Amino acid sequence: MSPSRRGPRWSSSGGGADGEISPLTVNRLSLYLRALTHLREQGILRVSSKELARRYRFSAALIRKDLAQFGEFGIRGVGYEVVPLAERIAGLLGLERTHSIVICGVGNLGSALARYWGFNHGNFRVVAGVDTDPQKVGRRLGSFTVGHPRELKRLVRESGAEIGVLAVPESAAAENYAGLIAAGIRAVINFAPLRLESTADVRVKNVDLRINLEEVAFFLSH
Amino acid sequence: MSPSRRGPRWSSSGGGADGEISPLTVNRLSLYLRALTHLREQGILRVSSKELARRYRFSAALIRKDLAQFGEFGIRGVGYEVVPLAERIAGLLGLERTHSIVICGVGNLGSALARYWGFNHGNFRVVAGVDTDPQKVGRRLGSFTVGHPRELKRLVRESGAEIGVLAVPESAAAENYAGLIAAGIRAVINFAPLRLESTADVRVKNVDLRINLEEVAFFLSH
Repeated sequence: MSPSRRGPRWSSSGGGADGEISPLTVNRLSLYLRALTHLREQGILRVSSKELARRYRFSAALIRKDLAQFGEFGIRGVGYEVVPLAERIAGLLGLERTHSIVICGVGNLGSALARYWGFNHGNFRVVAGVDTDPQKVGRRLGSFTVGHPRELKRLVRESGAEIGVLAVPESAAAENYAGLIAAGIRAVINFAPLRLESTADVRVKNVDLRINLEEVAFFLSH
Repeated sequence: MSPSRRGPRWSSSGGGADGEISPLTVNRLSLYLRALTHLREQGILRVSSKELARRYRFSAALIRKDLAQFGEFGIRGVGYEVVPLAERIAGLLGLERTHSIVICGVGNLGSALARYWGFNHGNFRVVAGVDTDPQKVGRRLGSFTVGHPRELKRLVRESGAEIGVLAVPESAAAENYAGLIAAGIRAVINFAPLRLESTADVRVKNVDLRINLEEVAFFLSH
């Protein structure tokens, strides 16, 4: 497969009116990849869309639509070849290499994410972290020493971090976000309770842990 | 407002074909509530849908549709009354009282969630936690002592926990989920990389922290 082929095929048929793949499609590809990895670990080398749908509770129709892009790994009436399809999706998701993460705010949540993502997730690695708390600056956390936000530019340059994570209180979110952008970060995961919007240059993913609690609380009381 | 009025109005017009409010609508109500709380803190007592949309980047049309249920708090041409509307939404979300949480797995993520939700979130409180690691069982974490999963039934009964959180590895997720259900838990937030489905009796919310990384990684490489 040539790299030039990978991009255009997707951008022409994978998403919305402007030819972009939607975040939802990307999320489904992540889930398919996990399912295929799971099958591979069990030694299963071929799987039909029906079987994938049954085992992992996806929609068989959506699987076929999403994976139509990877036609060469599907054999009609037999199914998909698990290993090459998994590798192709991993490549498309940019998971053929490791992505480095810098965390702003290494309190409860930030330090847990540093440990959680640092050790459990093959393709992602937390390489730097900052905090304004003088008790935290200079401390060792996993494989790095906590810095101060004013050092972000240097830390990002030296560590090669590409993804920024905001795990700071709401009041500090805007300032740390600006610091990440100024340091050259172009992808941000925001855990602060403040919605940040993606721009043409910066992709932001807002993650709201409390909203999950509120959602189940609603269904508990109805 | 009478309690009998609150339920039927919503269930007849709030959602899908069966009259249920969708999780997405519930999530939007959470976001409106946060926006209204923010306005209230600033001393702003009335707000139009347009202004809400502008400040917090919602869709004005969706706000009007979602909040049409709360007609009595809107004055045409003036806007919504911030405080009573916030209180009404909080009541609808079941946030007029505290919800208690039991966490399965108090490793990096679980113990961070215990601290994060335990201290920062008024309406939610982590009251119990279990782990199979003998090093963790018997340890103090926030306001509780870590137990063993085989004690779940007693711990849930004694603590009054209503919401279960799965922060265990994939291999332990199914067993801990079954333990929560057997203990009478009817709302589960699942952080394990294994999709669990809601049933008529149990509401499950799957939260996948890695998928957020994969989503931004995709956009970094395209």
